[in-house]
Amino acid sequence: MKPEDRRLAEGVLFTDQYQLSMAQVYFREGLHTRRARFDYTFRSYPDYGRHQAGYCVFAGAAPLVGWMEGVRFQTEDVARLRSQVTATGEPMFDEDFLDWLATRGTFAEVTVDAVPEGRVVHPYAPIVTVHGPLALAQILETSLLNHLNYATLVATKASRVAESARGGTVLEFGMRRGPGFGVNAGARAALIGGADFTSNVGISHVLGVPPKGTHAHSLVQVFMAIGRGELAAFRAFAAAYPDDCILLVDTIDTLRSGVPNAITVFEELRAAGHEPRGIRLDSGDLAHLAVRSAQMLDDAGFPDAWIVLSSNLDELAIWQILAQIEDEAPRYGVDAAALVARLTYGVGTRLITSHGHAALDGVYKLVAVEGDDGWLPAIKISESREKIPIPGQKRLWRIYDRRGAATADVVAALDEELVAGRELRIHHPYRAGVHRTLAGPDVAVVEELLTPIFGEGAEIVGDLEAARRRRREDLDRLDPGVRRLVNPHVYHVSLTDRVKALQDELVARVHGV
Amino acid sequence: MKPEDRRLAEGVLFTDQYQLSMAQVYFREGLHTRRARFDYTFRSYPDYGRHQAGYCVFAGAAPLVGWMEGVRFQTEDVARLRSQVTATGEPMFDEDFLDWLATRGTFAEVTVDAVPEGRVVHPYAPIVTVHGPLALAQILETSLLNHLNYATLVATKASRVAESARGGTVLEFGMRRGPGFGVNAGARAALIGGADFTSNVGISHVLGVPPKGTHAHSLVQVFMAIGRGELAAFRAFAAAYPDDCILLVDTIDTLRSGVPNAITVFEELRAAGHEPRGIRLDSGDLAHLAVRSAQMLDDAGFPDAWIVLSSNLDELAIWQILAQIEDEAPRYGVDAAALVARLTYGVGTRLITSHGHAALDGVYKLVAVEGDDGWLPAIKISESREKIPIPGQKRLWRIYDRRGAATADVVAALDEELVAGRELRIHHPYRAGVHRTLAGPDVAVVEELLTPIFGEGAEIVGDLEAARRRRREDLDRLDPGVRRLVNPHVYHVSLTDRVKALQDELVARVHGV
Repeated sequence: MKPEDRRLAEGVLFTDQYQLSMAQVYFREGLHTRRARFDYTFRSYPDYGRHQAGYCVFAGAAPLVGWMEGVRFQTEDVARLRSQVTATGEPMFDEDFLDWLATRGTFAEVTVDAVPEGRVVHPYAPIVTVHGPLALAQILETSLLNHLNYATLVATKASRVAESARGGTVLEFGMRRGPGFGVNAGARAALIGGADFTSNVGISHVLGVPPKGTHAHSLVQVFMAIGRGELAAFRAFAAAYPDDCILLVDTIDTLRSGVPNAITVFEELRAAGHEPRGIRLDSGDLAHLAVRSAQMLDDAGFPDAWIVLSSNLDELAIWQILAQIEDEAPRYGVDAAALVARLTYGVGTRLITSHGHAALDGVYKLVAVEGDDGWLPAIKISESREKIPIPGQKRLWRIYDRRGAATADVVAALDEELVAGRELRIHHPYRAGVHRTLAGPDVAVVEELLTPIFGEGAEIVGDLEAARRRRREDLDRLDPGVRRLVNPHVYHVSLTDRVKALQDELVARVHGV
Repeated sequence: MKPEDRRLAEGVLFTDQYQLSMAQVYFREGLHTRRARFDYTFRSYPDYGRHQAGYCVFAGAAPLVGWMEGVRFQTEDVARLRSQVTATGEPMFDEDFLDWLATRGTFAEVTVDAVPEGRVVHPYAPIVTVHGPLALAQILETSLLNHLNYATLVATKASRVAESARGGTVLEFGMRRGPGFGVNAGARAALIGGADFTSNVGISHVLGVPPKGTHAHSLVQVFMAIGRGELAAFRAFAAAYPDDCILLVDTIDTLRSGVPNAITVFEELRAAGHEPRGIRLDSGDLAHLAVRSAQMLDDAGFPDAWIVLSSNLDELAIWQILAQIEDEAPRYGVDAAALVARLTYGVGTRLITSHGHAALDGVYKLVAVEGDDGWLPAIKISESREKIPIPGQKRLWRIYDRRGAATADVVAALDEELVAGRELRIHHPYRAGVHRTLAGPDVAVVEELLTPIFGEGAEIVGDLEAARRRRREDLDRLDPGVRRLVNPHVYHVSLTDRVKALQDELVARVHGV
């Protein structure tokens, strides 16, 4: 795409056609500047098939804010809309509406509150709320969903991979099979969710995280093709990076060629005063080859050399590899714990595409509109009760028990203050009649989760390290059963009496009860 | 992201770190300007679980060419690389290498040949070939794979959806749950593969295809919240778009509220001299609701009103909906064929994410390097025979039988001319000893598939309509068994005697046989 096309495709027209169609209806009806509230929530944790998430890690807010700050209806955007025609060839958009977009078509009057990036989040809770002129809050929908759904999906997967890796370094390697320029959003989300580094050079520099990588088979192939061979390729790489030398050992034969040649080069490096870094295994039975390679590296005097694993890794593959290593290492006289401690994981396609569950089902629903005498709650009735939004202006709280563990997220009314130590009755978000009462001592700490991120009073967002820290802190306060990779415990998201009553009342009103 | 960050993240540094690491090794060894050939191939058709692709539709080449034309190592890119340090804090890249990148770091000396976009392609065949200075052809790898893998994946899914829709209009609706700005690449690929339109406004204008859409539940919710109701919302929409009026009928109750209200508005439109377009169903049992809605629309005198279906559609869901309609329509006195003819399909998440198979396993492998006396074939040995690349300089041919059906794609040597009517022995791409002989009459037509798309002699690429036409033409020439949605016939990709002999010889040479 030419730069001007890129601007068009990634600017304010990065939205669905129907948002603009509806915005014009609101304009014609005089409703376009009426303030509205939309909530962003997702309905279910990713279910990867044989394994399932019990929590999500929220991400994508800072890139969304950056997009909102950077776009507006520029001359070219309006000109393109002016060219759209109806079935009878008339202009689809009226000039007065286009004029309004050209002069007022920014997100300057919109405010956004959100759970901070990196925090653990759960279904049904309004984790982002948008207030603003109806037409602009409507136009924002598509880009907001796009920014938040994919980033939260990938951050969640990354968190699972990091948990599975038990503290081992995780490298995000997914650019090549990931979704176009979406991989930049994916790499950032992975870094928030649990990846330590990414191989993606451009986004690394944007984020201030050093990019990481080793080398590919092609390096060895080149030296083979010109008659110099694998050892010469390794020597050339070591000469260029004597203190960062990680050698890919599976181009010819891992145990008979790659590892012995790597050890030769490692000995040469050490003799020259450099400490080699390690090897990478990219095919075959990674657990078995890791054990055998560790044995060879140990015997050669390189017990600290890293072993980087790559090739279709995800949380389950890593889990199985570690289990196999614990079983197989002793048979080769290798210390399993020491081997696991030297492993690094290059996780590509299955992280950037969230293998097994490729889209988060996040939605953006109208929950209130300003009326003449204050806010009017909005509802949508659906054939499935769990798809009925939680109406009205609300706040989101998290409750911690005496041990400091998070036990419930509670959706409360805007003017409803939850108080530590006070008994609280809470309701299932959609199952009628299901409620429970938390005794005062079980409400040890209450915490509000939403903070302003765009508009008046907004905090500066985008600090990657802060987001990573929040993720670690939230995971520490999560029940281990909820963190489980397979069949996790269900975390509770609940409604207060008042929110529940409002939802019931609105549903009944629509049904004419 | 700020504009300068976007340029950094989507420019020449849109690559993996190890490509740059290797490029510097080539530079230090004096190999960086030596010409190399890399092939792009994929190894397997998408397997969606309960259904599988028997062919792929190639896409992504024009955006790749646009990217290659637009990027080079600019001052800022080089400055960022200069900031990278080794484990001991030394600069990772030497100044002479950075100087070379700054002055020669463009793809100007690289040439790319490819199968034209929209054409049907198969595994193992080199569907893109790159020739160029080794260092730059190496750096290109990541972006090339990123551009081609995802686009081909989505174009393939779109083709299946279009086949399943039996000629019904397909709308791409996936922005909101798709992968960041990757959805722009995905929407373009969907349009090549079989979608008629997309809801994505920006990319539609870039491509010159009108964006399409209806309205969301929020429009009805707003009118409900302010006390005016669904009918008023429909009237407001109809007033704005009297000749393009498609109404979403499931906000309250599809059959008891939405469709009756839509019919009221349709009658008003017609009385005012406009022809209403139709309704959209977005929840519930879509097949059943389509039958019942069709019955109501027929009875009210709107037998031509479209019925747009959306909500988790993909090729299998559409197939099942059509089967159910054929079964259920007669019971309500509805003509099933007439109903199917008025259906339109809004396909979102499951198209843009290629539901069930979220990444194409395309690879970019070194197959030859220039030596002092001509090209030297390159090989990589792998533990799995099917991962060994097809070495050397090659051409790709397609063979058609007397009926005009494509029967095999054949990988031949560069100076090997396939001739129509001449008997041809061809080999399985990786299974030893598996070969067959095509009799002369079975080689009715031979066609070369690769054409220059970048560099000297390159054709202008990017004509969307031409790509769509090529897809339709190729599908017409494909065995219906190969086009089947579930358990398709296997199409043959084969090697000529000479290519097979070269591969065997190189493998034997590496194994020291």
